[in-house]
Order: sequence, then structure tokens, then C-alpha cells
Amino acid sequence: MSARTILRGRTLTYLRAPEAIDDRDAWVFEEDGAVVVAGGRIIAAGPFASVPRQPGDTIVDHRPYLIMAGFIDAHAHFPQMQVIGSHGAELLGWLNNYTFPAETRFADARHAERIAGAFLDEMVRQGTTTSAVYCTVHPQSADALFSGALARNMRMIAGKVMMDRNAPAALTDTATRGHDETEALIARWHGKGRLGYAITPRFAITSTPAQLEAAGALARRHPDCHVQTHLSENVAEIAYTLSLYPGCADYTAIYERYGLTGARSLFGHCVHLSEREADALHDSGSVAVFCPTSNLFLGSGLHPYQALRRRAKPVRSAIATDVGGGTSYSMLRTLDEGYKVIALKGEKLDPMRAFWQATRGNAEALSIADRVGSIAAGMEADLVVLDSRATPGMRLRMETVETLAEELFLLQTLGDDRAIAETYVAGRAAKSALAG
Amino acid sequence: MSARTILRGRTLTYLRAPEAIDDRDAWVFEEDGAVVVAGGRIIAAGPFASVPRQPGDTIVDHRPYLIMAGFIDAHAHFPQMQVIGSHGAELLGWLNNYTFPAETRFADARHAERIAGAFLDEMVRQGTTTSAVYCTVHPQSADALFSGALARNMRMIAGKVMMDRNAPAALTDTATRGHDETEALIARWHGKGRLGYAITPRFAITSTPAQLEAAGALARRHPDCHVQTHLSENVAEIAYTLSLYPGCADYTAIYERYGLTGARSLFGHCVHLSEREADALHDSGSVAVFCPTSNLFLGSGLHPYQALRRRAKPVRSAIATDVGGGTSYSMLRTLDEGYKVIALKGEKLDPMRAFWQATRGNAEALSIADRVGSIAAGMEADLVVLDSRATPGMRLRMETVETLAEELFLLQTLGDDRAIAETYVAGRAAKSALAG
Repeated sequence: MSARTILRGRTLTYLRAPEAIDDRDAWVFEEDGAVVVAGGRIIAAGPFASVPRQPGDTIVDHRPYLIMAGFIDAHAHFPQMQVIGSHGAELLGWLNNYTFPAETRFADARHAERIAGAFLDEMVRQGTTTSAVYCTVHPQSADALFSGALARNMRMIAGKVMMDRNAPAALTDTATRGHDETEALIARWHGKGRLGYAITPRFAITSTPAQLEAAGALARRHPDCHVQTHLSENVAEIAYTLSLYPGCADYTAIYERYGLTGARSLFGHCVHLSEREADALHDSGSVAVFCPTSNLFLGSGLHPYQALRRRAKPVRSAIATDVGGGTSYSMLRTLDEGYKVIALKGEKLDPMRAFWQATRGNAEALSIADRVGSIAAGMEADLVVLDSRATPGMRLRMETVETLAEELFLLQTLGDDRAIAETYVAGRAAKSALAG
Repeated sequence: MSARTILRGRTLTYLRAPEAIDDRDAWVFEEDGAVVVAGGRIIAAGPFASVPRQPGDTIVDHRPYLIMAGFIDAHAHFPQMQVIGSHGAELLGWLNNYTFPAETRFADARHAERIAGAFLDEMVRQGTTTSAVYCTVHPQSADALFSGALARNMRMIAGKVMMDRNAPAALTDTATRGHDETEALIARWHGKGRLGYAITPRFAITSTPAQLEAAGALARRHPDCHVQTHLSENVAEIAYTLSLYPGCADYTAIYERYGLTGARSLFGHCVHLSEREADALHDSGSVAVFCPTSNLFLGSGLHPYQALRRRAKPVRSAIATDVGGGTSYSMLRTLDEGYKVIALKGEKLDPMRAFWQATRGNAEALSIADRVGSIAAGMEADLVVLDSRATPGMRLRMETVETLAEELFLLQTLGDDRAIAETYVAGRAAKSALAG
């Protein structure tokens, strides 16, 4: 019999995507709720009064804080922690002037380990318990991320980027080497602990057709691995990409040609998709990843989140920080800027949907909703505890908040890592255990 | 002989607007600088080694922090502190559904005093030492803001809003009453301590022609008072406004007709100006106030900051939070989102210009640059002390920062109130004196 911990608080979990702000059947909220955790998993959840107690139970009272499933970040680059907030470029210039020079340092395994540890700690600080992470071209960068995640028992998805052209020599592999290194990393890490591998051709500009072919072969051989890449972020990128693949009618067609679309494929950005491309993503079950702080910061454009969702052939959606093209590690800040991007398109993103997207919605997008993303018996105990009164401005505003939706919207509009009172990783109180 | 305090730190002040990121003659930076303060004023500034010391001087060593002139916020609504982060509306719905109900509570002077105090404390917490503030229609709301600012010895500009139509009865005055209450408030507060009055017809929708006429009369009678109002924020607002003033060719022409443009006139938003309107603002010396977090949050559109600046007849610019249509009290967060708005327009805002705008630039826009906004002998000692390593993410990023411009950009991209190590208000260390 393993020790049980009962987390008491205001609990919120989703059963499915809310269709509207008052679609109350889509979630379960308990004003005095409990999450019973043992062995890293949730073994029961419900009203505190109705959860059976046992001798030896430890009760942690988080009231009046909200307890939700931990946030999931569907697209981030850990090697860009020292690039975030670099001035004055759009996508291609930003890669060449800032990102690539920074990524060359990850040939040094010690540097990679240090930054990977800082990244994983930052995720915990922000209440993010799973991320889909791009490493550098160096296998040691992926080793660093995976070993750090394994030591912290975090559910992380990652892969070394495959790049065999249009990048500095120090950052390129070859079609063969990228393939073989990826194969070896899959063997070493995929399915170990809570780790999953993502086959990661960076994007079509930095991969030759031969490398995309190799990536597609890997995807066929490892159908339980993810594929992650970039798609249709920036107008100049799109034009350059199409010039490199003259036989392809559009950007998405390139990834289709090499077998890289599919239900485990995560396409970062998708800002400027044509209707045909959106159809192709729908038909293949692929995921479009919305990266609002990045799209704004790099001036890429406005991701059509609501249009993709509402079309006759809807496209699966995720939301992500895209650190370091994105400017914040926080999923709360990301939801705030996501709301703003959608507002500029004349639509709204309601907070019940927003928090679904950042938790269960992203879990569904990453095909891990059977393990994380909601609070239910059998799920892994990855949780975030949210303090809606974390700053003086939030405290004053909370005086007039009357509904759960208002509170969530306040959290995403005014909140940041200070609103993360605790982060549980497989049942372990991880944020309070961090130094500083 | 009054007691002198010498603030030691890395000092940055502007002499004029930088034309480019390397326009080094536009600012003075001292790696080991000093600001000598006595009697609420700066009496000397320069390299620490060259500032003459006296017996009895108190030295406060802020190294390695940056010391700059305090931030200036050119447009904010203090009665909206409990409205900030309200969901799902554009401008007119947002006013009717959220703002007007909240503003009715300011008939209660005790409520007004409490929120005014919270607002002024929040400004200090964010490093903002001057704001141009809208109060509610109630004179007691302006009394509350001014008396709170006087007690804190802050340089504040404010006025009661004049509204005599298209608002709830509890929030309307009349042309005569609005005029007379404004006249009385000017007599009571303008020029007292560091206070300035702004004649504040909210906008043309909520003022009859008679009220704008009265506001114009006040502006003529009190040429040293400011005028502040809203202009061209939202497409629906513009259409509605023009329907109310059928004789006017465009929105700006309304304010021109009633004598409300001019060198002390602050026009919030200016998102959708025509070329004729921009010419009219130029010709009258009026100021266009850029409110990025608000424009994004309400989906109003993208303010043409660089276009207004670069045109043959440039328009004077300011930048502002627009709390509570804006989503942050922080000028750092405001600069970050300002950068993003400009990036979406395919341009950039360099950090040397951004911090000029938030300090001396806004002081010039508010016609108070002879008193605040820079560090020089004779200026009032309103200062902010900035810690570029305030969070773990900032600390890691600072390891690779090599230039002042990079550091400023990091502050605006990753920073928030935690980066405000201290705020000096007329020489008094005000942030560290706040509770909590």
C-alpha cells in the first residue's frame, strides 16, 4: 500500500472541448474538491466530502486555489533560452542572426545539460508539466533534455532537429546521419520513463528532399513517435520554401509528399494556410499549433484559430509558447496573447475554451489525453495549483469576480508564474522544491 | 542646507529622441553613474567619480541596476482597476457592459479614495511616476485621485470625465454642470503640489455638441491645463461618432470644431486616422497616444506609430497603458506589446527609442519635459531603478547580453514589476515603502 496524498482545493477538469462559455457539461468544477494521489497517479477525484479517507493519508489544503491538470506546451525550443527577446528580426533573419549562433553552443554536452535543466525547472515554475521540445542538431542536446526530464520524472516529448542545408556547417547533419542519430535516440529514449520521441525535421528550408524522405521513413517505422516541424509561419519563409520544392503546389504538400502529415504530426504556426492546406491537415488528422507570442513578436501574422476550428473540415488545434521566438514561458501569458491575436481577427476566445486548450485540448492534440490533461482516476498526477490573488492588481480585481469563467480570464489576462502556487509532477510537489 | 542623497548605479538619460538604435548622441549612459538628490530634486548627475561629495551625504548603491527617469503613462483610467481583464467585448460593448457599471460606484467618495490609493500605489510598484488619468464623472473621483497624489507628492495629471449623453443616468452630467464642476476642480487642484488638471470630455459619443463647446471654452480659459479624450479607436465607434456629428467630415474635425486640438491635447488611440486627420493633429501640435495592450485586447486595430512619426507632417507621439481597456499596469509590458503591434505592421521599434518614449518622450508629449523625464540638475527626482536579472529566465538571458540596447530590450520583453527594484518619487524611495 503506497502513501496517499489528498490535495484539497477548488478543482476544475474538462470532459471535452467546451462549445461555448456556458457549455457546463464540458467540465467538472468542485468548489471543495479533492484529488487523491498515490504512486504518481490520480487514484480518485471528486468532492472532498465524498472521497473516502484512509489512515495515514496526507491532506494538503490548497483552498482557495484552483487545481487543474498541468499545462501542456505544444511547441518550444529549449536551446533558445538565451535568444528569447532578441531584437528586430523576422523569422529568417532571426534564425540566422540569433538562433543558429546560439544553437552551435549545444555541441558542448555540459552547456546542453545546464540549459536543459534550466528549461525544465522553468517549465515547473510556470505550471507546465509537458512540452513538445525542439533540441538542436546535436544528439547530445536531446540526451540532455531527456535525461533531465527522466530525472524529474516529467512527461516530455522531444527530438533533435534534423537539418542538412541552409544552416551553418556546425549545425548540419546529413540525410543519413540525421536518420541514424534519430534512430539511435528513439532507441535510447522513446518510451523510457515518461518520455516520447518526436522526429524533428526543423522545416523544409533546412532539410533536403532526401532528409525529409528519411524523416518520413522514420515516421513509418515508428508510428508511435511524434513528428514535429514548422509550417507556414511567415510570408518570406513560404516563398523561399516553395522555391526549394518546385514540384509542390503549396507548403503543406511538401510534408504530405514525404509522409510527414498524420495524427501524431505537430505543425508549428500554420499562419497563412490555404483552404487546400487546411483540408489536407484535416484529412490527415494533423495538428496546427498556435504560437501567439511568437507570431506577434516576429510579426509573422495572425493564426486563424477560430477559422480552423469552425470550418467544415476542422483542423485539430494546439497552443504553445514557441520559446524563444515566443516571448514568455508562461501558458497564462500565452493564452492572453492568444486572446489578443483572435481579437484582432474580430473574434473572441472564451476562457473556458482557453484553459481546455492549455490542458486537455493540448493533451488530445499530442495524443496523450489518456495519461495527462485531466483530473480523473488513472491519470498521471501532473497538476497545477493556481492562485488568482497572486499580485495586488489581481487581488483587487478578484473582489468583483463572480464566476469561474471570470476568474480564469483574470488568471490569463493578469497572471504569470506568480499565480502558479504549486506544480505537481507525477504527484511530486515540484515547484516548491525548486531553489529561488 | 538640506540632506543630500547620492544614488549610485548605471544611469541612462536621454537628450532627445534617438533616430536609430546607434544614435548615441541622443542619450547619456554612465556605467558607474550618480544622481545627487536633495529637496526632491536632482541637483547633479554624472559619473560617480566626478560628482563632488559632501559630509553627511547618504550614498545608496544600486549597482548593477539601471537608473532612469521614472516611467510616464500618458493615458489610464483609474476607476477601471476592477474592470481590467473583462471578457469578450469590443470598445462600445465593453464600455456599456463593464466600464459604466463599475464607474457608477465612484459616486461613493470612500470607494473612490480606496481605488485611487490602490492605483497610485500600483503606479509606484510599476515604476510609473506620472500618469494622465481619467476619473469618473463624479467630482469626488477626481478629488480622490488628486488628494492621493498630493499626499504621495506625485506629479499627476487628471480630470473628471464630462459625459452628458449615451451613458447611464448615474454617470451623466450636463453641459453646464460638467463645465462648472471642471472649473471648480481646476480651481481646487491645478498647480497644487505637482498636480495638473486635464479637461476630460470622455469622447464625442458621450458628449453633446454643447458639452464639447463648454470643454473648448474651458480649454481657452485655462491654456495651461491639458485636454484629454479618445479619438479613432474602433471602427464601430468611428461610424457611430460620425452619425452624431453629421456636419463633420471626420472624427478629428469634431474636436477641431470645438477648439479641443492643440499642444496640450492628448488623443487616446488614433488607430484609424486618415491622412487629413493626421495633418490636423500635426498642424495643431496635438499628441496621438499609442495604447498597445488595449488595442490588442479590445481588437481595435494596430496604431500606426512609425507611420505617424515618419510622415512629412509628423504627429507627436506618446505611449500608454490605457488601464483597464489595457491589460497591464506595467510600462515594460506596454513596450513589449507596442513592439508587437509595430512588428505586425512590418516595422520595428528599437529599444533605445522605446525607453525614450516611456520617459522623456512621454514627458515631451505631456509638455512636462522641463520637470521630469530625464536625469539632469534641476529636474524633479522621479526615478526608476531597473533590475535586469529579476527572474530566473532574465538571469539566464542576461548572461549573453552585451549591449545596453540588448539589456533594455530584454527588460521590455521579459520584465514586469519584479524588474522595478525601486521607484523614487520626488526623491523619496516609494516602492520599498509600500506594504506587500
